[in-house]
Amino acid sequence: MDTGTTAFMLCSIIGLTLMIPGLALFYGGMVSVKSSVNMMMMTYGAVAIVGLLWFVFGFSLVFGDSLGGFLGDPTDFFGSSGMFSLDGSTDQTSVSGLSLLLFSLFQALFACITVALISGAAADRMKFSAWMVFATVWAVVVYFPVAHWVFSFDGVISEKGGWIANKLGALDFAGGTAVHINAGAAALAVAIVLGKSANFGKGTKPHSVPLTLLGAGLLWAGWYAFNGGSWLGASDGAAFAMVTSFLATCAATLAWLGVEKWKDGHVTGIGAASGAITGLVAITPSCGDVTPMGAILVGLVAGAICPLAVGLKERFGYDDSLDVVGVHLVGGVIGTLMIGVVGSAESVQGVEGLLYGGGLDQLWKQFLAAAAVLVYSFVISLGIALAIKKTMGIRISPEDEEVGIDARLHRDPAYELI
Amino acid sequence: MDTGTTAFMLCSIIGLTLMIPGLALFYGGMVSVKSSVNMMMMTYGAVAIVGLLWFVFGFSLVFGDSLGGFLGDPTDFFGSSGMFSLDGSTDQTSVSGLSLLLFSLFQALFACITVALISGAAADRMKFSAWMVFATVWAVVVYFPVAHWVFSFDGVISEKGGWIANKLGALDFAGGTAVHINAGAAALAVAIVLGKSANFGKGTKPHSVPLTLLGAGLLWAGWYAFNGGSWLGASDGAAFAMVTSFLATCAATLAWLGVEKWKDGHVTGIGAASGAITGLVAITPSCGDVTPMGAILVGLVAGAICPLAVGLKERFGYDDSLDVVGVHLVGGVIGTLMIGVVGSAESVQGVEGLLYGGGLDQLWKQFLAAAAVLVYSFVISLGIALAIKKTMGIRISPEDEEVGIDARLHRDPAYELI
Amino acid sequence: MDTGTTAFMLCSIIGLTLMIPGLALFYGGMVSVKSSVNMMMMTYGAVAIVGLLWFVFGFSLVFGDSLGGFLGDPTDFFGSSGMFSLDGSTDQTSVSGLSLLLFSLFQALFACITVALISGAAADRMKFSAWMVFATVWAVVVYFPVAHWVFSFDGVISEKGGWIANKLGALDFAGGTAVHINAGAAALAVAIVLGKSANFGKGTKPHSVPLTLLGAGLLWAGWYAFNGGSWLGASDGAAFAMVTSFLATCAATLAWLGVEKWKDGHVTGIGAASGAITGLVAITPSCGDVTPMGAILVGLVAGAICPLAVGLKERFGYDDSLDVVGVHLVGGVIGTLMIGVVGSAESVQGVEGLLYGGGLDQLWKQFLAAAAVLVYSFVISLGIALAIKKTMGIRISPEDEEVGIDARLHRDPAYELI
Repeated sequence: MDTGTTAFMLCSIIGLTLMIPGLALFYGGMVSVKSSVNMMMMTYGAVAIVGLLWFVFGFSLVFGDSLGGFLGDPTDFFGSSGMFSLDGSTDQTSVSGLSLLLFSLFQALFACITVALISGAAADRMKFSAWMVFATVWAVVVYFPVAHWVFSFDGVISEKGGWIANKLGALDFAGGTAVHINAGAAALAVAIVLGKSANFGKGTKPHSVPLTLLGAGLLWAGWYAFNGGSWLGASDGAAFAMVTSFLATCAATLAWLGVEKWKDGHVTGIGAASGAITGLVAITPSCGDVTPMGAILVGLVAGAICPLAVGLKERFGYDDSLDVVGVHLVGGVIGTLMIGVVGSAESVQGVEGLLYGGGLDQLWKQFLAAAAVLVYSFVISLGIALAIKKTMGIRISPEDEEVGIDARLHRDPAYELI
Repeated sequence: MDTGTTAFMLCSIIGLTLMIPGLALFYGGMVSVKSSVNMMMMTYGAVAIVGLLWFVFGFSLVFGDSLGGFLGDPTDFFGSSGMFSLDGSTDQTSVSGLSLLLFSLFQALFACITVALISGAAADRMKFSAWMVFATVWAVVVYFPVAHWVFSFDGVISEKGGWIANKLGALDFAGGTAVHINAGAAALAVAIVLGKSANFGKGTKPHSVPLTLLGAGLLWAGWYAFNGGSWLGASDGAAFAMVTSFLATCAATLAWLGVEKWKDGHVTGIGAASGAITGLVAITPSCGDVTPMGAILVGLVAGAICPLAVGLKERFGYDDSLDVVGVHLVGGVIGTLMIGVVGSAESVQGVEGLLYGGGLDQLWKQFLAAAAVLVYSFVISLGIALAIKKTMGIRISPEDEEVGIDARLHRDPAYELI
Repeated sequence: MDTGTTAFMLCSIIGLTLMIPGLALFYGGMVSVKSSVNMMMMTYGAVAIVGLLWFVFGFSLVFGDSLGGFLGDPTDFFGSSGMFSLDGSTDQTSVSGLSLLLFSLFQALFACITVALISGAAADRMKFSAWMVFATVWAVVVYFPVAHWVFSFDGVISEKGGWIANKLGALDFAGGTAVHINAGAAALAVAIVLGKSANFGKGTKPHSVPLTLLGAGLLWAGWYAFNGGSWLGASDGAAFAMVTSFLATCAATLAWLGVEKWKDGHVTGIGAASGAITGLVAITPSCGDVTPMGAILVGLVAGAICPLAVGLKERFGYDDSLDVVGVHLVGGVIGTLMIGVVGSAESVQGVEGLLYGGGLDQLWKQFLAAAAVLVYSFVISLGIALAIKKTMGIRISPEDEEVGIDARLHRDPAYELI
């Protein structure tokens, strides 16, 4: 085992954990003051339940030996068995020179954050119990399978892995499909089933722009662990992924502010925060596939399109409160497809896109991967949300929504400032 | 020297430093808006003074050659002498392949955070000057000796170390006794000497739940450096400790929310934050001694008992404002004792507890260590606090408390929102 | 390449990125509630634009082969060319065992943070478009040249480097001159050109002390990456720099609070935050040159002088709103000069100052470096700001300032709490 790589991954866990308060604040600052505790609790609650599921059987469903390319064998690492040994001598307990336990913890945080991302579509109006049930079921029947498709490579941990990584050969460095398209499609389904909040379209203001900007900053810092850490080595590849991540974030921030200026005549703090996150989303799949200058292009494209995409919810009438669709779904699709367009032989992955003479082949693979995850996630998520609605109920009462979900459901108003 | 381990420990310093704003906000969000600046300053002030004491003579009191198992020789490393050399060639300047200076900085932050933890019992009503004197004296006569007992192993830095680590043989991976029981017992003493705040029992609400949740998140991230870093190596042991830390945190969060739901009918943001911290406290001593599934059990037990333990202050009438006793003392005792119950041969420490056929032996050692630290800390802390009360005075005037400690003592109200 | 050092630098990027929300909050909490979004956006906006400039040509201007000691050749690494190769085999792609791309990202964040620091002088009243233009031009004509002078050593990346590092031989471990004196002098120029804000001298209160204390905590954590990372190796030198950084911060915090107590009769949260930052500023140039006990002295001196220096703005009537001059310029000068006074042969740099028998030689070099950067930065910054004032205008209208820059320019008030 290499201590440098181990050190990098150990510290990446610290970085990824910063994404928990980061996401909670990014979302929590954007909602009204009547819902921000609930909003933040959706992140903490999802992380807690998905973290346990992961080490009990989730890891095994993702990285166990593949059942037909669709799901890992749940018995391979059930209850974390076979994931560690005292002397570190068996092959099974290491992957790429890392302890399997450490790799598992790294991946655990991907699962936790992905589920939490969905909550942005459920602001102000979802029962907390319904959210916790949704998070549990969604992790098991959507995230674990999709992560298996995308992240489980043949012969790395188990003999056989998932179909997107191995059969299709689509590229996804750090989760454009499994994380962002996946969460974004689920968010759309949840928003549709929940229905519009009472304030939809009334131009509700974020209750705290500083908290949202802080959340974006914490997410930015933690995201390097996400993208750089996915290289699983303290070497050039991780550095490459961090540089492209940085540049796409800078470019998308400026692009988003530019679109705001052009469209509305002024730039906003929420725009800066959303732009940064959009750049990070779009570069997530592509951070090892584009050059630094290519990363600027990825950021500019995502940062220009996503602020327009967030307007779709008003046109089509789904209340994706905090723009999980506009940022994560659209940004994830842009990043995933752009690999096929501006992927460069000079990048660490080294696959050429359309513009560099690579033909349509890679672009087509990228499209198929994005489409498969989008459709699977949307359909199953719709089913889960509808089932919850029919059984336990998914939405709080209009009176509770009127008074505020924090005060009524949690008896825990966010602030007591007097 | 191993660069991987050095990298891990260097970055751990960044993580541990995040616990400073983390703790300040966790506490600062929970108090009333009239006291939150004072609350946060108690953390920053304690860190500043204890940090200086540490490098002047604290390290030597903890890791200098033992005077009878009770205290290190203060002259061994006085003024940081003998802790570094330009060529790194002498034995004295390294420990486990680390520079002694780096090890000392790591341990410095343990000392700083432990002292700051106590401030949670002193909310709203303690003179800042009295707090700074208490922090100084307590560090010298309580923390440094107790840390010597627990953290100084024979032959690692000095020939002879402390009695708990070497003679008794109790296990404490990252400070269940020296940090959490120690701070919790001192908090009880401080709360008793201070007396109840004017608002005790009136159900004062936290002034900012988002800041408390953010603080909990920063503490969570930094805690990995605490627990993982205590392995002092970028290897399997650190990864093991981080995985168990993660799982106990997730489990305790859910357990605390479950108890809230059962007891009060609703779940709160403060409950989620407190649950996470409780899990981290309980796993601190045990993170190298229990399996991942054992860690879930540790988290569930602590997360179920501590929310009941915080009710003790109302029954017994001591005003431990922010539940340092209920979370750190009780959580620390639970984690310390559970090593003797569910300690597993499959863990990196490899000592078997009662349930795995290890007999009562280890459990008895754990009990003695917990009891010794609890009694010593409580008695001496009571003496320090009483001495301060008799001499300089420990509590602000009722008028100042009524108007608010921020406005009256610091002339620095937390917010100016209009 | 050494994986331990690579791991340290990769994780340093996470730490440095925490300084973005850290600085945004440190400043954003100190301004009035009418300007805090604008304040935070100045940080995010500056980072975004300077980050792009850096990888397009900034790195080359700083680390390209020197044109007479004053500027690097912009064509050497234009568009990040020559900064990476797939096999990592060429000399050009590594520096001190690090990938050049990673070194570049590390340095990119220095550039971004330095520019953002200046914004503290522009609170409440600078057009956002003017700020973005200023940030762009200043990075190119001030930061890139000065960073070349100070950070580009002969033969490390290019054959010839900058005049301060090589010809003059002044010491600056992590940017006392290039970062803090540079930003502080520019802030003075900006404050003069902008003129006083409408509220100058009226004792405006910070709108959120908790956010400022949080910002200081995040900056503290990230600063270790700044100072320790400047050693470019996971070894003793980085540990040494972190220990001195920690001690100076603790000492300056206490010193600042002591001056407040002596001068005003009470201590404040803003004082604790400012003291911590002052210690970090002063130790930045000197963290490898003074012993741990010397670092305490550096902190005490800076922490005692800077709180007096912030009063200069009232005497001389320049509105350096958030004390960039008093903290960064004065603190940077103190730290830079103190190397020549208390530099120790026992430090990792090993140059002796006046008090240790080193004569006036090093002190004179330190003075020249500080003066050169101060004068160059002040004069050119004044020119840039005046040019902006004459052409596009630099200040918002009195009506906009009266109502608030957030509400009028950004249509994005910070809070919506009812």
